[in-house]
Amino acid sequence: MLEEKNRELKQLSDLGEFALIERLTADFTIDTGKTVLGVGDDAAVLTPSQSETIITTDMLCEGVHFNPNYTSLRHLGYKAVAVNVSDICAMNAIPSHILVSIAASARFTVEALDELYAGIKIACDSYKIDLVGGDTVSSRSGLVISVTALGHAQAHGIVKRSGAADKELLVVSGDLGSAYFGLQVLERENISLQSNPQHQPDLEPYDYIIQRQMKPEARLDIVHLLNALDVVPTAMIDVSDGLASEVLHLAKNSGVGFVIYEEKLPMDHQVIDTAEEFGINPVTAVLSGGEDYELLFTIKQEDFEKIKGNPHLTVIGHASSDTSSYLVTKDNQTIELTAMGWDNFDE
Amino acid sequence: MLEEKNRELKQLSDLGEFALIERLTADFTIDTGKTVLGVGDDAAVLTPSQSETIITTDMLCEGVHFNPNYTSLRHLGYKAVAVNVSDICAMNAIPSHILVSIAASARFTVEALDELYAGIKIACDSYKIDLVGGDTVSSRSGLVISVTALGHAQAHGIVKRSGAADKELLVVSGDLGSAYFGLQVLERENISLQSNPQHQPDLEPYDYIIQRQMKPEARLDIVHLLNALDVVPTAMIDVSDGLASEVLHLAKNSGVGFVIYEEKLPMDHQVIDTAEEFGINPVTAVLSGGEDYELLFTIKQEDFEKIKGNPHLTVIGHASSDTSSYLVTKDNQTIELTAMGWDNFDE
Repeated sequence: MLEEKNRELKQLSDLGEFALIERLTADFTIDTGKTVLGVGDDAAVLTPSQSETIITTDMLCEGVHFNPNYTSLRHLGYKAVAVNVSDICAMNAIPSHILVSIAASARFTVEALDELYAGIKIACDSYKIDLVGGDTVSSRSGLVISVTALGHAQAHGIVKRSGAADKELLVVSGDLGSAYFGLQVLERENISLQSNPQHQPDLEPYDYIIQRQMKPEARLDIVHLLNALDVVPTAMIDVSDGLASEVLHLAKNSGVGFVIYEEKLPMDHQVIDTAEEFGINPVTAVLSGGEDYELLFTIKQEDFEKIKGNPHLTVIGHASSDTSSYLVTKDNQTIELTAMGWDNFDE
Repeated sequence: MLEEKNRELKQLSDLGEFALIERLTADFTIDTGKTVLGVGDDAAVLTPSQSETIITTDMLCEGVHFNPNYTSLRHLGYKAVAVNVSDICAMNAIPSHILVSIAASARFTVEALDELYAGIKIACDSYKIDLVGGDTVSSRSGLVISVTALGHAQAHGIVKRSGAADKELLVVSGDLGSAYFGLQVLERENISLQSNPQHQPDLEPYDYIIQRQMKPEARLDIVHLLNALDVVPTAMIDVSDGLASEVLHLAKNSGVGFVIYEEKLPMDHQVIDTAEEFGINPVTAVLSGGEDYELLFTIKQEDFEKIKGNPHLTVIGHASSDTSSYLVTKDNQTIELTAMGWDNFDE
């Protein structure tokens, strides 16, 4: 849209709150059959469902959860939806609706928020969910995005963090550590750009890991896959912090321990290569890196045959009757896992 | 709790995110029978309901929606819940659940957030709703609170903004303008205190209007009253902005106009007195002041007998087939209403 480059950008105050909400939500249609009344009244009305309602909420703050220097607002909008959908998926549920609230300072133009909502819309279309509400307010500084996501599941299909039992298998979807190394590359290039605006980064060797950082996907496909394979996990969580933190959550909630094996941890070759380049142990990044948004779950041993050989699923360990959890390294050392997942308040 | 005054206050980073959430939500119990699984998993699970689910969300930002100089965090927590419950009530629905996300800068202590959650808990108890989720993150500056509220209503009982018809009566609950004048008094005292820290304000003559500003109530009692009176409004909205803005919303959504009468507008005597003291026309404050959180609704003429004489309800005008809406003043002038409701981005 080069021809629009010289167009004068609109300030948020040019429009006012109601006109802004109308503009931002104009392209969103209600077409899942799960919504009676969407945006535009005091509240939305959802179609009654025979199944349980699942609900979760997450907040993203500028300077803490994203760096505007290298995060496009379109990607950010997508990610804000995806991370919430990921929590719905982690209950083995199907997402249905979202509400999105934005606090933006006067520094943001209407066109900037258009970009943010374009990303939100792409995510809504991708995950087949309706945007049914939100709030758009001014903030004194920065951008804050709060998303609430709803989903549905039959009671017998809902998977909590608390159902894992001794000897069950611990399975993870996809691969781990990619988002962490994507972030390292982006931060390095950001520093280079600031010292030399002429710097032309070659990001092609990092395309996969950058994509995983910028535009993470909720593994709704895995929820559908498990259903097709007739596997109901006994416990599940999404890997939003590091693997260690998530394993310990499952352990604590289920009253078991876990043993995971370094040699089983699924990592993309870009993770291995970039880890070497940065001189970081890739296993450390997997354990404490975060933002992979893969699903981590336990299954009964007799379900192993159903998932065996599936390229999207990797058995990385098993539950134990111990109260502690351990990593077994390639050279057969046993190391106790501690919560090394990222903790925002420690930054 | 004077004996605790010298206790060392905890920084948010002392606890970490998970321990903080556990601490803040420890006192919240799940006891409405409407929740299967509350805080502590990837998402909450709500009991299936035969009725429609109603959902809304609102965000409050420090420096925009509240001034920390004269807003106690306990009041703020209560208000953050009440304004969302008010939106559920405006659909003629019964609130059932909330989710609360907080972004707080390092300037806030754990004890400060304890106070905020104490207010949230008082509101949950008062409105009989379960806290089922949320997020607690750090922000680079200030406090942002995002609340999502859910409620339920049978399909035939849901009241939108769009159902008003010509000649129907326009009714408002309680009184108007109080929250606006409460804010004026608080802002005046805040300025006095800043220039003279010894200043001892006498707020007793303003107790009602200050209470209405600091601790607004959602009119859930009116939803129950209407049900008891067997009145289903044809259209409804809550008065969060000024009356003019809300009347115009009902008009636009319903495709009608309204005529309202100055002499009918319900105002407390503290509003009249304070308006005189400040030299502000109280009607202007009612029309454009905001934050009253009363319910504004239309009823069929034949329902008038059911509400007649009720001290909580006042007929202030009627719908018309005109496309514009008007105020008829006490001296019989007719003035067209324009949207003078508060608009955050204009500040």
